[in-house]
Amino acid sequence: MKIIIVGATGTMGQYLSIALEKEHEVIRVASKGGDIAADITSTISIENMFKMAGSFDALISTAGPTYVGPWSKLDDTEFRKGVEGKMMGQINLVLIGQRYINPKGSFTLVTGALAEEPQRNFANASAANGAVEGFVRAAAIELENGIRINAVSPTVIEDSPQYFPYFPGEIPTTMRELEFAFRKSLFGAHTGQIIKTW
Amino acid sequence: MKIIIVGATGTMGQYLSIALEKEHEVIRVASKGGDIAADITSTISIENMFKMAGSFDALISTAGPTYVGPWSKLDDTEFRKGVEGKMMGQINLVLIGQRYINPKGSFTLVTGALAEEPQRNFANASAANGAVEGFVRAAAIELENGIRINAVSPTVIEDSPQYFPYFPGEIPTTMRELEFAFRKSLFGAHTGQIIKTW
Repeated sequence: MKIIIVGATGTMGQYLSIALEKEHEVIRVASKGGDIAADITSTISIENMFKMAGSFDALISTAGPTYVGPWSKLDDTEFRKGVEGKMMGQINLVLIGQRYINPKGSFTLVTGALAEEPQRNFANASAANGAVEGFVRAAAIELENGIRINAVSPTVIEDSPQYFPYFPGEIPTTMRELEFAFRKSLFGAHTGQIIKTW
Repeated sequence: MKIIIVGATGTMGQYLSIALEKEHEVIRVASKGGDIAADITSTISIENMFKMAGSFDALISTAGPTYVGPWSKLDDTEFRKGVEGKMMGQINLVLIGQRYINPKGSFTLVTGALAEEPQRNFANASAANGAVEGFVRAAAIELENGIRINAVSPTVIEDSPQYFPYFPGEIPTTMRELEFAFRKSLFGAHTGQIIKTW
């Protein structure tokens, strides 16, 4: 299977790349340092990335920039980080990528527990995650040629301990749990599902 | 109670204005035709609206422009209708309005069943609704001075029969159910809740 991993140099993307490349052709996409460079906040950059990658069987996205910080500083400008990054960035990967993906291919985006379990400083991610989840359910009934779409929803990630203090009471998602959630979307028959690790 | 109704000239806003003005001071806000004109896609316009309205006890939003139409024509540009309208428009009403609302005041935004129950042609609304719901849950734990926030989630509205064909299997939300959902947010103690009429 030919799998594009967007956000491949991040904590999640690196782990998934190593896990999946044992049995699959993995194309690493990142803002820099991957096989293909792409800025997911630019539809032109996304289009160029797909042209370079060629047809593929699955796309995994772990790319999710958002504003993290005090509510008192959260305004329209800061909110755009999550709107352009985790929300429209991932949505545009699907809207554009559907013209390049093979029949019966799959898209797997990343959302997160913050959509339903808010924490202070992360309102922007809660909104972006909610948007991604609503979009995934809607896209699943619109995509053609047997193409599936799901989202994986982790809580704070085992390999990002610097975030633990911001997620009181959240049992971290292990990297193995994360990998298996993506495997469920990639190799299962699900579509329109939010695959939670919490 | 002094209540600002944004989207006051729409189907939902008109009904709520008439229902609530019997016992409350209602300020109708709309792009045109209300007591105060405002464009919720502009933060400057929102700020001016709040300055004109003065301090208030509750804000109700029924304003939700989104792209409605074929998936095949849904691209980044069309998607922005819902991003700027139903999503960021409503989010900015809260981010800006929190500086003008009275202590113990409330915000009530509008979302919709499409967040969880997608229908063809409405993927943009599904995403915008999901964003609003994630934001409402997060804002509820950040807002200070006893200020509450909820969202009302109707399905297709009784008084908009032109949309019935697009919502197969959905029992329409009656105007009375809609009014009572908003009353639950306005006069109850809830915060961070999605009040569903379906």
